[in-house]
Amino acid sequence: MKNCIVAQSGGPTVAINASVAGVLSGNEKTHIFDTVYGGINGIEGILHHNIVNLSEKIAEDPDFIRKLSVTPAMYLGSCRFKMPKATDNAGLYEELFSYLEELDIDTFFYVGGNDSMDTVLQMSRYAAEHNLPVKVLGIPKTIDNDLVITDHTPGFGSCAKYAATTLLEVAHDAYIYPMKTITVVELMGRDAGWITAASALARTSYSAAPHLIYLPERPFSKEQCIADVKKCLETTDDVILAVSEGIRDKDGNYISATGTELDKFGHVKLAGAGNVVGDFLKEAFALKVRVIELNVLQRAAAHIASAQDQKESMELGEHAVTLACQGVTGHMVTFLRKSDSPYTYEISSHDISDIANAVKEVPDAYINEAGNDVTDAFLAYARPLIQGTPELTYKDGLPEYAFL
Amino acid sequence: MKNCIVAQSGGPTVAINASVAGVLSGNEKTHIFDTVYGGINGIEGILHHNIVNLSEKIAEDPDFIRKLSVTPAMYLGSCRFKMPKATDNAGLYEELFSYLEELDIDTFFYVGGNDSMDTVLQMSRYAAEHNLPVKVLGIPKTIDNDLVITDHTPGFGSCAKYAATTLLEVAHDAYIYPMKTITVVELMGRDAGWITAASALARTSYSAAPHLIYLPERPFSKEQCIADVKKCLETTDDVILAVSEGIRDKDGNYISATGTELDKFGHVKLAGAGNVVGDFLKEAFALKVRVIELNVLQRAAAHIASAQDQKESMELGEHAVTLACQGVTGHMVTFLRKSDSPYTYEISSHDISDIANAVKEVPDAYINEAGNDVTDAFLAYARPLIQGTPELTYKDGLPEYAFL
Repeated sequence: MKNCIVAQSGGPTVAINASVAGVLSGNEKTHIFDTVYGGINGIEGILHHNIVNLSEKIAEDPDFIRKLSVTPAMYLGSCRFKMPKATDNAGLYEELFSYLEELDIDTFFYVGGNDSMDTVLQMSRYAAEHNLPVKVLGIPKTIDNDLVITDHTPGFGSCAKYAATTLLEVAHDAYIYPMKTITVVELMGRDAGWITAASALARTSYSAAPHLIYLPERPFSKEQCIADVKKCLETTDDVILAVSEGIRDKDGNYISATGTELDKFGHVKLAGAGNVVGDFLKEAFALKVRVIELNVLQRAAAHIASAQDQKESMELGEHAVTLACQGVTGHMVTFLRKSDSPYTYEISSHDISDIANAVKEVPDAYINEAGNDVTDAFLAYARPLIQGTPELTYKDGLPEYAFL
Repeated sequence: MKNCIVAQSGGPTVAINASVAGVLSGNEKTHIFDTVYGGINGIEGILHHNIVNLSEKIAEDPDFIRKLSVTPAMYLGSCRFKMPKATDNAGLYEELFSYLEELDIDTFFYVGGNDSMDTVLQMSRYAAEHNLPVKVLGIPKTIDNDLVITDHTPGFGSCAKYAATTLLEVAHDAYIYPMKTITVVELMGRDAGWITAASALARTSYSAAPHLIYLPERPFSKEQCIADVKKCLETTDDVILAVSEGIRDKDGNYISATGTELDKFGHVKLAGAGNVVGDFLKEAFALKVRVIELNVLQRAAAHIASAQDQKESMELGEHAVTLACQGVTGHMVTFLRKSDSPYTYEISSHDISDIANAVKEVPDAYINEAGNDVTDAFLAYARPLIQGTPELTYKDGLPEYAFL
């Protein structure tokens, strides 16, 4: 008897379920595992023996894998639980691996972002040090696109497509009145500006929106922003700005900082960079200013997902099964890009210790000199990731998704 | 030489361009008009002789009508200009009709909401009183669905589909963590709760969200809302509320009132009913509370438009051309529903004087007794309006829209 378990952790994306679907389809092809279990609510749920038999779901519904691959958020639920180091809590690791042994688990697949990859690192180290036969493999996902080594992360492409599509629609909406207006759109991205940068994909032959883009990778200056907007207003009636929630001043203070409250991982809580920027622009120009926060829909709007993103995410899940066949452990599956146009890539994997706890910012080559836009090189990088619309089925006018 | 002019006014929807497309396709079928002109920025633009030749656009691009029919916001631009009464400014009417005569205008089609239908009323009266040969016809549009006589308004179905789809996706997003949470989603609707009511279409076999729905048609009580949420939390971990921006207390004061500032039409400016509700729920329950404002995307998200809505909107434009052939003036085209299931309707028209300046609220039969939900009768009414996804073409990963 040889089984595997897959779980999800961190914030949702519209492609994270596709990786679980990929593990399932990978096993349908190889039959390496007798049963594929799902851990409910990540590692925290597994510690509470909260699991589900996913192999049974496939048996019950032949369309399950496809439907799962286009479902937003996390079918198996998530957690924000970060495994302590084994040196700090050996008992927890003993408990965890004893339960995995009880389930005849050969491989544990963890789909997640930065914090989840740290769990993969800790668990694979513990297994190696204690000669345990359990393989631990990471499958990346994060709309933030901020994991190192991999060319990009599943979830980012769909988020980028949502950002670009809605920015274009916001632009159509902004252009209708014969008056000058300013629209500030706030996008997600606390430490890295990938999502905000992707809003530049909204540009068409007739619309240059967003006209200005501000990322956390460059110090944000209120005075410079006002000067930038003033210049734009000379040539366009409706100026649209895309600002990252994580923009900071030259001293590193969040523009939106509402205090010093920290979340469970010690990150400063943020709210409203868009509102702050909107307020000072209103004061500076006395024009109509709209502030739009592209809230959780950025990570949940499966109806406008990138089909390419969901396909790649599924491929990563399948490749993780292949790695398990080959006895690989302590790795995260990765994308290696071969070329932008035509877009080609290979799927590979890399030692998790080089990946966990590192953040990949938008590189200098992707940001213009003035620090208020992205470069053509960024557009060439990002455009292949937003291609294709998912093949959704609809019931009563709504997309059909999978639910546990 | 017999021409017509079509213009758009008021707030945008993702189906208003379909009505302009309908006027064009109606004329392609009948050839009643030699040239179809478009007025740029509504009646205000026409007064400034700001027009475009739409017949030429069709000649230039054979796909123009289809592309226009799926384009969000307003291809011809909008205005917020309300025609004064002719008794107050006869000169303006003389100027306007003299320009229409210059263009050999036989019919003026005005696509808009409540304020625009008042312009249709004023203009058709003036024309009748002065024996002018110009016919004036109204084509309704408003996401708010608050025009009387017509069964519903074009734009509402798409807005309802956006509200339902995103509510479902927000629900998927809310369910992922093993903790109790409250999510407050604020939807548009100042005086009538149609859009907020439509969020109930998000419900599926596995998700009852939104669990509570508050409309402006019922006095809103903070204490009752807290009691409602408390009761929901007994049976569900994640309570999702849909609140209309226009909810008011028993004395008629907006929950969100931020002051007494009025807009150009004398309406009180509103902001943040969702935030107000979120704040008191946070205080009452000490749980994680998220507030999501479904901003302008409600009226701009053409990528998730209702194909039924855009089709009907186009049919109204075509019917308006038919009415013009028949010599009708001072009417607004309307929908008459024949049955909910199967959904059947007829297109007709009605004297504008019964329509302009009246507001259709959500009727009692569509609101539950407790005032915190809609009834099955409402769902039966609204569901046919969100069916079908538009046949969009994509370029570089983005939907292709028309732009002037």
